[in-house]
Amino acid sequence: MLMDYQIRKSAKADMGSVLKLIKELAEFEKEAHQVEISVDDLIRDGFGENAMFTCYLAETKEGIIGAALCYNRYSTWKGKTLHLEDLIVSEAYRGKGIGKALYTRVLEHAWNQGVKRVEWNVLDWNSGAIDFYESTGAKVLRDWDTVQMNYKGLKSYLSKK
Amino acid sequence: MLMDYQIRKSAKADMGSVLKLIKELAEFEKEAHQVEISVDDLIRDGFGENAMFTCYLAETKEGIIGAALCYNRYSTWKGKTLHLEDLIVSEAYRGKGIGKALYTRVLEHAWNQGVKRVEWNVLDWNSGAIDFYESTGAKVLRDWDTVQMNYKGLKSYLSKK
Repeated sequence: MLMDYQIRKSAKADMGSVLKLIKELAEFEKEAHQVEISVDDLIRDGFGENAMFTCYLAETKEGIIGAALCYNRYSTWKGKTLHLEDLIVSEAYRGKGIGKALYTRVLEHAWNQGVKRVEWNVLDWNSGAIDFYESTGAKVLRDWDTVQMNYKGLKSYLSKK
Repeated sequence: MLMDYQIRKSAKADMGSVLKLIKELAEFEKEAHQVEISVDDLIRDGFGENAMFTCYLAETKEGIIGAALCYNRYSTWKGKTLHLEDLIVSEAYRGKGIGKALYTRVLEHAWNQGVKRVEWNVLDWNSGAIDFYESTGAKVLRDWDTVQMNYKGLKSYLSKK
């Protein structure tokens, strides 16, 4: 059965549903304890003149079942780029093309902005996602690692310098 | 001999020197052909109300010898973060603590912004850089890969959908 859904930009009132999806993805990634953000944070940060992200939603009559959140970055090789931070479809609705519809909408947004590159990250064991991305023409760069310093590390480093 | 240098924020007039450093780093990474950006792009994108990056410089009497370029990103777990895009010290000036001084300045900028995390990427064969980052308390996440879709891929994907 084909799903009846629409893809649209998010509004402030959707941020509760978006946070639920963020938590669902974090659980899948075995990192649920890492989610510190609140609905109020998302409302403050995602809207208005200085919005820090753009979020697209997949919605059925039952409610919001998927989200894609993206923002601009800056490459010293290419200039402005678009980063896809999260692409989430709630578990019960996977395998119906909804993730691809959200992904396509983000790529259209990138094209309309005129960016030279779209990028994102993937867990190296998530072979389903990797196969999908490669089938669309994206390249997985296996020789670049991500480095992070968290708040505690930052505080510790700056107190010792 | 100790180097006499200062760390300061960049100005538009510095962007020619910054582009030279960007090209030097791309050569080190064996990717020199990838640099498409121009001095005019950097001047247009890095200054004013909607600046897309912040750049710090290391400067001696001889000129600009290092740069660190960063911008904000958005984590759906932590909120606003800072991304360190490039940390460059010109080859003749390496091993004198200049890279560490630029790195520290970026981390201070992150702290002053109140972000919860700073992140960047490193080539997995660049063990000197990895050792340095880990010595400062940063963590290398080896299970996340970077995925990119370039302009050509984007055009091709969107024309077929």
